[in-house]
Amino acid sequence: MDHPQQPTSDTGATAGARGRPRAAVVVTGTEVLTGRVADANGPWLAEALRDVGADIGVVLVVGDRPDDLHRALRFLAADHDLVITSGGLGPTADDLTAEVVADFQGRAPAYDDALERRITARVEELSRHRGWRRDPEATATAVRKQAMVPTGAHVLEPVGTAPGLVVPPAEGRDGPPVLVLPGPPPELQAMWDDALTAPLVLAAIGGAGALRQDTIRLYGTPESELAATLRAHDDDLAGLEITTCLTRDGELEIVTRRSEGDPAQSAAYDALLTAVRHDFADTLLSDDGRTIDALVADALLDAGATIGLAESCTAGMVAARLADRPGSSAYLLGGFVTYADEVKHAQLGVPTELLATVGAVSAEVARAMADGARTRLGTTLGVGVTGVAGPGGGTATKPVGLVHVCVTGSGRVLSAELRLGGSRDRIRHRTTVEALHLVRRHLAGEGEEA
Amino acid sequence: MDHPQQPTSDTGATAGARGRPRAAVVVTGTEVLTGRVADANGPWLAEALRDVGADIGVVLVVGDRPDDLHRALRFLAADHDLVITSGGLGPTADDLTAEVVADFQGRAPAYDDALERRITARVEELSRHRGWRRDPEATATAVRKQAMVPTGAHVLEPVGTAPGLVVPPAEGRDGPPVLVLPGPPPELQAMWDDALTAPLVLAAIGGAGALRQDTIRLYGTPESELAATLRAHDDDLAGLEITTCLTRDGELEIVTRRSEGDPAQSAAYDALLTAVRHDFADTLLSDDGRTIDALVADALLDAGATIGLAESCTAGMVAARLADRPGSSAYLLGGFVTYADEVKHAQLGVPTELLATVGAVSAEVARAMADGARTRLGTTLGVGVTGVAGPGGGTATKPVGLVHVCVTGSGRVLSAELRLGGSRDRIRHRTTVEALHLVRRHLAGEGEEA
Repeated sequence: MDHPQQPTSDTGATAGARGRPRAAVVVTGTEVLTGRVADANGPWLAEALRDVGADIGVVLVVGDRPDDLHRALRFLAADHDLVITSGGLGPTADDLTAEVVADFQGRAPAYDDALERRITARVEELSRHRGWRRDPEATATAVRKQAMVPTGAHVLEPVGTAPGLVVPPAEGRDGPPVLVLPGPPPELQAMWDDALTAPLVLAAIGGAGALRQDTIRLYGTPESELAATLRAHDDDLAGLEITTCLTRDGELEIVTRRSEGDPAQSAAYDALLTAVRHDFADTLLSDDGRTIDALVADALLDAGATIGLAESCTAGMVAARLADRPGSSAYLLGGFVTYADEVKHAQLGVPTELLATVGAVSAEVARAMADGARTRLGTTLGVGVTGVAGPGGGTATKPVGLVHVCVTGSGRVLSAELRLGGSRDRIRHRTTVEALHLVRRHLAGEGEEA
Repeated sequence: MDHPQQPTSDTGATAGARGRPRAAVVVTGTEVLTGRVADANGPWLAEALRDVGADIGVVLVVGDRPDDLHRALRFLAADHDLVITSGGLGPTADDLTAEVVADFQGRAPAYDDALERRITARVEELSRHRGWRRDPEATATAVRKQAMVPTGAHVLEPVGTAPGLVVPPAEGRDGPPVLVLPGPPPELQAMWDDALTAPLVLAAIGGAGALRQDTIRLYGTPESELAATLRAHDDDLAGLEITTCLTRDGELEIVTRRSEGDPAQSAAYDALLTAVRHDFADTLLSDDGRTIDALVADALLDAGATIGLAESCTAGMVAARLADRPGSSAYLLGGFVTYADEVKHAQLGVPTELLATVGAVSAEVARAMADGARTRLGTTLGVGVTGVAGPGGGTATKPVGLVHVCVTGSGRVLSAELRLGGSRDRIRHRTTVEALHLVRRHLAGEGEEA
């Protein structure tokens, strides 16, 4: 299903986004820059900005070097209406964001007495709650540092111990305000609503009216085919912002953005939908934004069906993914992780002879596993997954990446043999996704009589 | 275990990194900028650059807008020895990286006849292998586009269908070369060794000698305590680059980087290790870089022990995480996902009376689940996990975030009651991590006699 093209985008005419306020995000932290921690704040802020009708222009990651942050602020301030920073507000001496932003905007840091008292109260409350061992001197130093704010900045109340800040340029200077937010995603997210009501933030990005985003998903179409369809309908799609992307799950996503209530853009969206439905009827997964997870959950609920798993190489990943959704207990009763052959036999009743003759990685064993899970758990559907995830364990006839998946139940059997490439991690991930697709197809009536 | 401080860093003196060549990375793609796809290339390149002794200064994400990419190149070229781009080399009309880089460096794109033939051969090979349905005209257009390269650029052979490029500034212009790499991580990674041997890349970042990176991990120490220790030993640590970070798994990572074979920096590292071992003996998880996953795997192997799981709220996540490691079949025999109460009873033998009296989320049921998994799978250790992951299902006495974990075996029982905050996803993730820590502690001899 995967193909070698870039996960890049077809941006059609972008008239719909023109004239919108534009924000940039600076993520600080050497641990993010060096890849030890994945940035969650850039993506979250992009989505949050979209919700209020603002575009995101750049996400920039710098380490904990004041010069680099200063240069980044100068670069971004030149062509954005708002610059947002995340991180570097912690209690340690090298968390320097507030200081660098104060310097950049020409506003000297000053000590906020009342804020210090509020932060101290927060630290005491959090310490009690979490049972930290605290060194009073270290704590006082940390709190004092966090209570230094640029003169004239608007303070956003701390969610953890760090306050947020909205820092305008000094009187007589040009440039956008800088919104300074903490690094931990739960803190940043909890502070966002408060930030949006700050007058300087409202003035910078407020009032644009929301952009509507729609997502169409295909499974099994290469990006070049979609590109050909988009080219063929270029005239009808003018004014619609379209990006396409091949996801890690192997879905080709078509995401459109348009101004709510713009009739020309609505007509362009309808033209896109008609073209995609016509050209990709076989691979159209959903045109209402639903992911494969949502489609499987909805189909199970609609059918009043229950499901049980028997997993070898995925070792619980399919069950865990089904359970990602709140309310999944309505259809997910349980599952078996049968890594060892004797467990496949003892817990699922896979015949020892079968394991000995065709081997654990075979269509026959996948089916016996699915039947075993279904009958032992008393579910409507059973799913069996067995394969060679690698990097070792492959043979000439059963190479790394060979996986068998089977869904049984309701008098039907639907099987798939996969030959996947890539790492152990990728093979197990793609197997999990393929298992979900097989369940969806089984629920849609596919499969042979059992 | 978690605390509200920033996942930011303490950068000590950075003399060790001074004078090293410095590279910047531009990641292109609206789907990355808007957060629909997580960037894997920035982190991977940061690590790969470190391996050859270069620093990474900035990672910058832009959408598919030529102006934004052009501005980003100008910004980064000013103070980096090499600028690397990823993405935007695909076959569709709006993959514009090669064109924008050509323009930026002042080198007109030209058509490479021999390259076109090689790409065509790649496409045919890939299409055969993957069974794509291909439109010949769309393919020819795509290939022709990918065979346009800036005059004087060094071509890196395609791994997928897109060639990489090393593009120097035009004769008489100043500035670093731009290394243009494809977006899909497997392609980018497969092309890296080839890129490193390109003379312009070698000249820009080669020959610096590797940086040595070491990681010390603590579990249960707040970042402010560590900051106090680092401050107290400031003089001894001069010359060592230290960053600290609280990971998603709740570990406090201390990462140091130093020049291989520099005696002053080695002494500073030894001083750090001595101080951390002294001040944080209780929470020191490892000082040899091993993660909790590695520690559990090694302890199971050392003990010759096997393990079986019984999971409710995590629904397979603990088993799947154990199976992430190649070779895990040496100790992981299997597990049960027992989401429904009747499955806890039928598959694990949890007494119905127990479920009725103390409820599924209880220390007693966690223990019965652990025992059930252990006896039914015949493993050395059994692990039981049961909790309220939310967002619904909480009560006054059993709120969302209450989780019981139990490890039994070898005549000992070790239990933990967790009270976790955050989303369903976070609660299940942290439960998985806590289960691994409990297994490690049990294997280290903790627990009460059963």
